[in-house]
This record gives sequence, structure tokens and C-alpha cells, in this order.
Amino acid sequence: MVAEAAVVLLSGGLDSTTAAAWARAEGYRLHALTIDYNQRHRIELKAAARVAVALGVERHMVLPLDLSRFGGSALTNRAIAVPKGGVGPGIPATYVPARNTVFLSLALAFAEASGARDLVIGVNAIDYSGYPDCRPEFIAAFQTLANLATKLGVEGARFRIHAPLAELSKADIVRLGVELGAPLAETWSCYDPDPVGGRPCGLCDSCRLRAAGFAEADVVDPAQQVPPLAKLGKEPA
Amino acid sequence: MVAEAAVVLLSGGLDSTTAAAWARAEGYRLHALTIDYNQRHRIELKAAARVAVALGVERHMVLPLDLSRFGGSALTNRAIAVPKGGVGPGIPATYVPARNTVFLSLALAFAEASGARDLVIGVNAIDYSGYPDCRPEFIAAFQTLANLATKLGVEGARFRIHAPLAELSKADIVRLGVELGAPLAETWSCYDPDPVGGRPCGLCDSCRLRAAGFAEADVVDPAQQVPPLAKLGKEPA
Repeated sequence: MVAEAAVVLLSGGLDSTTAAAWARAEGYRLHALTIDYNQRHRIELKAAARVAVALGVERHMVLPLDLSRFGGSALTNRAIAVPKGGVGPGIPATYVPARNTVFLSLALAFAEASGARDLVIGVNAIDYSGYPDCRPEFIAAFQTLANLATKLGVEGARFRIHAPLAELSKADIVRLGVELGAPLAETWSCYDPDPVGGRPCGLCDSCRLRAAGFAEADVVDPAQQVPPLAKLGKEPA
Repeated sequence: MVAEAAVVLLSGGLDSTTAAAWARAEGYRLHALTIDYNQRHRIELKAAARVAVALGVERHMVLPLDLSRFGGSALTNRAIAVPKGGVGPGIPATYVPARNTVFLSLALAFAEASGARDLVIGVNAIDYSGYPDCRPEFIAAFQTLANLATKLGVEGARFRIHAPLAELSKADIVRLGVELGAPLAETWSCYDPDPVGGRPCGLCDSCRLRAAGFAEADVVDPAQQVPPLAKLGKEPA
């Protein structure tokens, strides 16, 4: 019997890479979908390509969809600064309007067109930036929608939206990624890389959450994304 | 007080044009969103542009998103034939996987980024092709999702998904369009236009439903889309 395929939303970051490694460990064949949305940190697209190879993804689709046409986010409008002062309360300027709704919709289209019924997304709602479309109730509502929206759903197939990191802290995600052999060295997290050298800024929420997660898990970041200030004195093992 | 803006999904067809005219009559400023999804009948994009001008749309965005990368539909894969035998039971090959989910997600992103809270879509579930993502329960589920998915929703704004044609027959839609002064002469419905002359085929579901709707409403189709065979002997008034 051939393994079922799962469509994995793969940004090239720590979370989506670990979620993809989880799906592989669950026995799915991986169909990865990466959206080139004209993001400020489009360097992550290169990471996604490396991760897809390292994970043995069967099919990797990189789909252009220019969300900067809408704007409304520091990640799609360079006139809006990426916050650097630390993770605070509220929803930050890096929130991209309806991004995960759009991405899951595209994953659903990809899945239905190819006969897959399982979607995997690396959202988590513990150590995160407060994005509404990372919460478990959002994922549950999308699954309900998916089964109403589709021919496969109407015909009785059930789409399942897997968010295996939903309840994990960032340190737990690092530990899970290491345990599953996820190619964490190939991942990229920074929202605001230096345009010349392509190095992580170390100060955006994404850099901070990543650094804190590796530090708490007592794992050296193999991508060396942790800038000296955030390393808390740890040396490579 | 400035009128509120509504984001209208505008394909250039009879239904979306009438829905947009409804929104205009309701007093909304119109922000139209047209998706260039590499559809077989991309001639409809020209119709959408004409309709947008005729309706006095404030902003018309045509967003490229190549759904033919996924395939799985006669509208996005030319190797799959458009059915010509008449509207039958079941979901036909022209169903595009998750299309309305994707389109509403993009309308939501557009709306949230620009501060609009009203989305308008011309789906109807009476004289239609049985697409699951045209049913009222789908629209209701999307509205629930929209308010969980977004910053505006979390902050207490309520997104509303308007489907003003949901309960109308095709003849009712024609009558409403005429009543509202919708630019029906500029619309395009055919799924499978002749590639050289760009004339409607007259035999696909979309042509048949349109022709039957105009005939039942006893209105001459101003776009002259009704081919002779379907005209039932009616002459222009």
C-alpha cells in the first residue's frame, strides 16, 4: 500500500520544517507548498528549497502570490518597520492580513487537486507573536470550512488539518525537531535580514523566539542564527 | 460621513456583476478583486475590467494566482474537456478545487489590509452547477472563520460575507441586474470560448444557465451571449 500524501505548508522556518519532519515521521509522503508572497525575508524561500531536499519531499511547489499588493504588514510593505524591541502584548506589525487563511486555502486546493486529504501547518500558540491565525480555534474552523468547501468533502472524504506544534513551546519545538532529525541547520527565521550579507537581525520577534527556544532547550542552533547577544554565553558543543 | 468600502469578488460574469451592482445600491464604495488564475476563459478578465469601469469601482485589483499549477479542473487544465451535454446532477469537471475558499481568503486579506469589513460574492445555489463552495453553509462557515482569522476580528470588528444572490434563481438574478442597472452588456459567462473569435460556445453549463435565465426573465441578453439555438425564437426587442 502506498503511503498517503500530506500537503505541508513550508516556509523554510523552524516551525514549518519541524512540522514537515513530524509528517514524515507519521508516514506521509510529503507535498510541500511554499508561497512566494513577496515577503521582506524572501531569503526564506532558499531555506525552504534546502529543507525540501533534506526532508526528501516528493513534490515541492513554490507558488508566487504577491501579497504586497495588499500591504498592511511590515513583512509586505517596506515602509512599515519590523518591531525590534522584544515580543510584547497585542498583535504586532508583522501580522500579514489573513495570511494563514490564504495559505491554508491554497494548501487545500493543492491537496484536493492531487487527492491528498491531510494538510500540515506549523502554527503554534505558546511562544508566538499573538497572530490570530495561529490559534487552535482558527485551525478547527478551517477544517470545518474545508469539508464544506470541497468536492471531496461533499463526497464524504474528510480533510484533516494537522497543527502538530499547536501546544508546544518554542523549546519543545526545538527538542522535537532534533528528535525527528529535522534539518534545522537549513532553516531561516529572521523577518528582517541584512540586505547585503543576508544575516539574521537578532532583534525581531522571530529571531528572539528562536534564540530563546534553542537556549531553553539547551541546543546550539545549527543554523547559527543566534546572534552573540542572545546566546546567553553558550558556546558550541 | 464617507461610505464604507466593500470588497467585491468580480469575475466579469453575470452573477458577480449583479452582486457588485447590489453592493453599489446598498451604498458601499466598491473595491473589486479579480483573480487572474490562468483560467481557460481568461477573456472574462476583459469583461471584469469593463464592468469595473461601468460600475464606477473605486479600486480594481487584478491579482495573478496561477491555479493551473494545481490543475484538477476543466477550467485550469486544457486536457480536461468542458462538459457540453447540459447541466446534470453531481459536481462537474469545471469545479476548481477550493476556488471560492481561495478567492474569499484573498478578498479577506484585501479587506483587512484596507480596513473594509464587508465582502461580497455572487454565489448562488439555485440555478448553478452544484459547486460545494456556492452553498449558504459554506458562506456562513467562511464568515465564522474570517472573524477568528484576523486582527480586526479579534479586536471586535465583524467581517460580513454578503452573498446577495444566494437564494435567487438565474432569472431572478437577471431581473435584479436589470433593476439595478448592472452593466450586463459587458459581462462574460462562457467557460469555453472559441479561441479565435472569442465567442461563447453556447453549450457549456455557464452558457446554458445564462441563456435559460434571460429566457425565463424574458429579457434579451444585451451581451448577445445567447446563441441562436438557445434563444427559443426570441428576437431582440
